[in-house]
Amino acid sequence: MCELLGMSASVPTDICFSFTGLIRRGGHTGPHKDGWGIAFYDGKGCRTFHDPAASAASPIADFLRHHSIKSEIVISHIRRANRGRVALENTHPFMREMWGQNWVFAHNGQLRGIKKLSLGAYRPIGGTDSEFAFCWMLGKLRERWSNAPSDRALHRAIEELSLQIGQHGVFNMLLSNGRSLYCFRSTNLVWLTRRAPFGAATLVDEDLTVDFAKDTSPSDVVTIVATRPLTKDERWSTTPKSTLVAFRNGELKTTS
Amino acid sequence: MCELLGMSASVPTDICFSFTGLIRRGGHTGPHKDGWGIAFYDGKGCRTFHDPAASAASPIADFLRHHSIKSEIVISHIRRANRGRVALENTHPFMREMWGQNWVFAHNGQLRGIKKLSLGAYRPIGGTDSEFAFCWMLGKLRERWSNAPSDRALHRAIEELSLQIGQHGVFNMLLSNGRSLYCFRSTNLVWLTRRAPFGAATLVDEDLTVDFAKDTSPSDVVTIVATRPLTKDERWSTTPKSTLVAFRNGELKTTS
Repeated sequence: MCELLGMSASVPTDICFSFTGLIRRGGHTGPHKDGWGIAFYDGKGCRTFHDPAASAASPIADFLRHHSIKSEIVISHIRRANRGRVALENTHPFMREMWGQNWVFAHNGQLRGIKKLSLGAYRPIGGTDSEFAFCWMLGKLRERWSNAPSDRALHRAIEELSLQIGQHGVFNMLLSNGRSLYCFRSTNLVWLTRRAPFGAATLVDEDLTVDFAKDTSPSDVVTIVATRPLTKDERWSTTPKSTLVAFRNGELKTTS
Repeated sequence: MCELLGMSASVPTDICFSFTGLIRRGGHTGPHKDGWGIAFYDGKGCRTFHDPAASAASPIADFLRHHSIKSEIVISHIRRANRGRVALENTHPFMREMWGQNWVFAHNGQLRGIKKLSLGAYRPIGGTDSEFAFCWMLGKLRERWSNAPSDRALHRAIEELSLQIGQHGVFNMLLSNGRSLYCFRSTNLVWLTRRAPFGAATLVDEDLTVDFAKDTSPSDVVTIVATRPLTKDERWSTTPKSTLVAFRNGELKTTS
């Protein structure tokens, strides 16, 4: 299995603190030593870093911990290989262009028989069930719409496709088009929103405390999503099971 | 205008020396301060780094200079914006998946009227003429073949499409599918191959000399391609004008 980390924020925000907690699980406090990756949106652009080495010992991961890259949407993943060998092409998050947008995807879980589904416009480069599921989902979306549809229609379609993928096993996933952070939970996915008045928080995986009041302004809103709580002194909520949840600008988005 | 750097090698090779020369031109010895990027293939996977800041002052570029990432194919670019604002999404190299392969592209030059062409399966995310040309080329290839064709057919098709794009202006480009490094020159593109007996070389843009004999084995073959020579004591050749040239495993590939 793997671990996921996502962020949606109202202003470009650095994720160094949460990322520090996550990457400790990549070979130090956790067994997820088969690679890691992170994607930072910056407007329509997206910066990604991937490394098939353990994050706890990765020089690039260490660089990112100490060099703040501010972003409004981040998706990160640390991997414990089950399907697909340890290799760069099997390292999440995966990225594709659809409708002139960067789509980024990371998955936790195993999907049985997913590779029997017929693919559309997108092909996997590596051998994971995760990338296959991502390609299948994008293919279905693009088959239905040649241009980006309304947010509501898109939300419903992603939820429906996630439910179909979820029938193949465990499907905890983070997905973004640079506008919304979509989250789907089969088993493990928790979230919290930090907003004024900001306080301090301490990581579960490292003896590190940050006082968010120092680096934030009162209007900042930042939501963090992860497979397991990253801090031990904040209240994390579980996302609803088998339901697509979307965050935009740090806020939970309702589609009704 | 911009500057290009490409590498094709018989064994995973680090490009720190050439990259050091290139990034000095990004705001220090050259005016190409509007972003830079680099893609390193690793098997079917590809690692990319992009930064819309000047390479000469970029912490990530500095990190890459000092942390060897070995690769058999590298494409790098430093940008001086002419079309498309300074932004992450306008930073080369651009990447797309086609036929289950990572395709990477970087371009030097300006293309007039290119955006009047009809696109196929690929859409630009940013606003550059370069990314548009890349999307147009991939769309045409994919329209013709739903799976990767033979090397020879692919070579001819890319050359033909490059000639068509070249009619719109200056088209010096580097392109790869992780197997071959394709190079097309309208105006500026030079190359050299380093092989045994390896000697020393000194950068044009920085007082740095490397003795390649130290870190190579006798069977290594490494070709470097760039818009302008990067070293002052080696013999660089100009690639033939308006002809697609391909390198594989460091060697010039003939298609006849």
